[in-house]
Amino acid sequence: MERLVLLSPAEQKLRLDKVRAAMAQRGIKSGLVSSNPNIYYLTGRVFSGYIYLPPDDSEPIYLIKRPVHLLADRTISIRKPEGVLSELKIRNWPLPEALGLELGRLTYNMADRLMAAFLPDGTKALDLSRCLDEARATKTPHEINLMKVSGAKHERVYRKIPQLFMPGMSDIELQIEIERVSRLEGCLGQFRIAGEDMEIHMGNVLAGDNADAPSPYDFAMGGAGMDPSLPVGANGTLIRTGMTVMVDMNGDFTGYMTDMTRTFALGEIAEKAHQAHQLSIDICSTLAKMGVPGVEAKVLYEKAEQMVTEAGLTDYFMGHRQHAGFIGHGVGIEINELPVIAPRSRDILAVGNAIALEPKFVIPGTGAVGIENTYIVTPTGMECITKAPQELVQLQK
Amino acid sequence: MERLVLLSPAEQKLRLDKVRAAMAQRGIKSGLVSSNPNIYYLTGRVFSGYIYLPPDDSEPIYLIKRPVHLLADRTISIRKPEGVLSELKIRNWPLPEALGLELGRLTYNMADRLMAAFLPDGTKALDLSRCLDEARATKTPHEINLMKVSGAKHERVYRKIPQLFMPGMSDIELQIEIERVSRLEGCLGQFRIAGEDMEIHMGNVLAGDNADAPSPYDFAMGGAGMDPSLPVGANGTLIRTGMTVMVDMNGDFTGYMTDMTRTFALGEIAEKAHQAHQLSIDICSTLAKMGVPGVEAKVLYEKAEQMVTEAGLTDYFMGHRQHAGFIGHGVGIEINELPVIAPRSRDILAVGNAIALEPKFVIPGTGAVGIENTYIVTPTGMECITKAPQELVQLQK
Repeated sequence: MERLVLLSPAEQKLRLDKVRAAMAQRGIKSGLVSSNPNIYYLTGRVFSGYIYLPPDDSEPIYLIKRPVHLLADRTISIRKPEGVLSELKIRNWPLPEALGLELGRLTYNMADRLMAAFLPDGTKALDLSRCLDEARATKTPHEINLMKVSGAKHERVYRKIPQLFMPGMSDIELQIEIERVSRLEGCLGQFRIAGEDMEIHMGNVLAGDNADAPSPYDFAMGGAGMDPSLPVGANGTLIRTGMTVMVDMNGDFTGYMTDMTRTFALGEIAEKAHQAHQLSIDICSTLAKMGVPGVEAKVLYEKAEQMVTEAGLTDYFMGHRQHAGFIGHGVGIEINELPVIAPRSRDILAVGNAIALEPKFVIPGTGAVGIENTYIVTPTGMECITKAPQELVQLQK
Repeated sequence: MERLVLLSPAEQKLRLDKVRAAMAQRGIKSGLVSSNPNIYYLTGRVFSGYIYLPPDDSEPIYLIKRPVHLLADRTISIRKPEGVLSELKIRNWPLPEALGLELGRLTYNMADRLMAAFLPDGTKALDLSRCLDEARATKTPHEINLMKVSGAKHERVYRKIPQLFMPGMSDIELQIEIERVSRLEGCLGQFRIAGEDMEIHMGNVLAGDNADAPSPYDFAMGGAGMDPSLPVGANGTLIRTGMTVMVDMNGDFTGYMTDMTRTFALGEIAEKAHQAHQLSIDICSTLAKMGVPGVEAKVLYEKAEQMVTEAGLTDYFMGHRQHAGFIGHGVGIEINELPVIAPRSRDILAVGNAIALEPKFVIPGTGAVGIENTYIVTPTGMECITKAPQELVQLQK
């Protein structure tokens, strides 16, 4: 038999306490955790089933579909959610009260089915999603360590990129070599995105004007993609002199992702592109100093916008034909966590936030420029954990 | 401006007619299509927004969030679903009646929000999910062509596998080289799976006894994976003499996927493994002949089970420590479509079904054996579109 919970008891308690505190604020007394990212968050592994958080603040009860060999203090082996209530009764374990479900992740049909199975009196479930999002927004020291491991491996991959380039390559050919090196370095490939609307494979390599092709997805940058079934990223552009190549590839080496972008150039590129790239670096270092606990996320956005306006580069900021509405986002198990660094964000920075800042520009005729780093919010500011060289790097020496 | 609908009018009509017919059977008069796979199905591209199918059977109305430059006969540019009703009224376009939503795909919160926005009288939406699933289960000739293109490229990748193997390789190292060759052949990487519970990166390479490690996902085979955050597939097993290596990798080269598995061996392997592999080939060819329109899916399952029982290989069929409950499944835009080839399936085969059959075995001490092919149901039986050699192939000549 294999132990179900891979976190230490102290680590699991840290996480559960945060979730419970967020539940208490919303009057949610019990919860059913059902999504892979949140099951992973609370146990350190993905399994098929549910984590039931009983109303008496006692230990979680694990409702396990698959795999069948996992061991924990309180488990019920289930095939489907119907019947769990009577299993709880048989064992004299606490029944749900003011139950929260992941209504922001569960499908309507499944939420409906879980409500019928767990709340036979016809009451509605409360929404547990935000409690988990908020708990996950501040990382524990153990989670920060995993992110730093990802950041270091991510950096090793990016340092190899100039060696992977060969003259005559297209954007997708370069991307495929980066994917391979990244996988050999231990990248799990999995790119977890909250919400069903966003799709991408391993990340984004944008060469030249393809950076200006608008995509349907809510990423900072677009790109036409290789096929209309997945219209984002590399589109087969031949990498030519005078172009930039922006690389924003998967940093999931540990279950926790770092997000890092670097920009490469082939030969001489336009002066405006150099200027915008340097501004991106400057914005990141300015915001990193400002980003102390208690600062409003939107204040960081406003500062970036102000720096861009002063430089006269507004038309190119966060896209040219289509503009993204944010410059940064939380990151961890998924690529889009709290806090959001956007004009209308109500988030406030806190110790342990992991934030990717990505002030990027699209310069027509040249391509995308700018950088992205992942930072951890500390009492004195934001610590960068993605340390590849930030300046524009020549693909050919 | 770029045309939104990439399908020919005749092709789009074929698909819409099938969806409309399935809606009529359920009393659904209008629909809102919201998920990427279904938006792609009805237009030939992914965009962010909704396809509104009005109650009068007239042309679709496209509600577009992103990208902003798409052109179609009837479009409304939207930022959010609230307010669409008044936009419809202004244009004198038909309002929703007996509205269907994708309740099997939308999150509870989003379905709730769409109901409030589109059904202000408080009526509940009907479930459109199954209508789209059923329409997509029988492919049009155009879709079958895309699947055949994927099948041919998939085959070219698999034929290269023995050249990619080098002595001393682990399963994941071999997988990474297959991923690279596959991507260079045009594989989009994207591996669309319906439902949020299943995750995998580019497919599954299982060496030796790792094939017997149960995973949480509802795939035919498991594998421990490289990390508990993604516990499926290759786990770093060194490929040794006497082992089999089962390869089941991503066949999405066109937006439509083929599903194909082949098994490789290093040196001599156990006689029972040879026997089970041959039985898998025999089951596939027997079922392919039986699989004419009108046959019940469960009858195919029963035939496979009977052949396995007669051979005395039941203990190893579809897993050893943990058994999968199906031997085949529909495939197309997603890897898990209708029909399902399982004991309790109510599906009945029809012309145009694309079905992956995967009768597989796990032989302790050796590994997984068997094959998987994708077939198109024709009036005279199932046509195989994944044509790599089926026999056990030696990794080293």
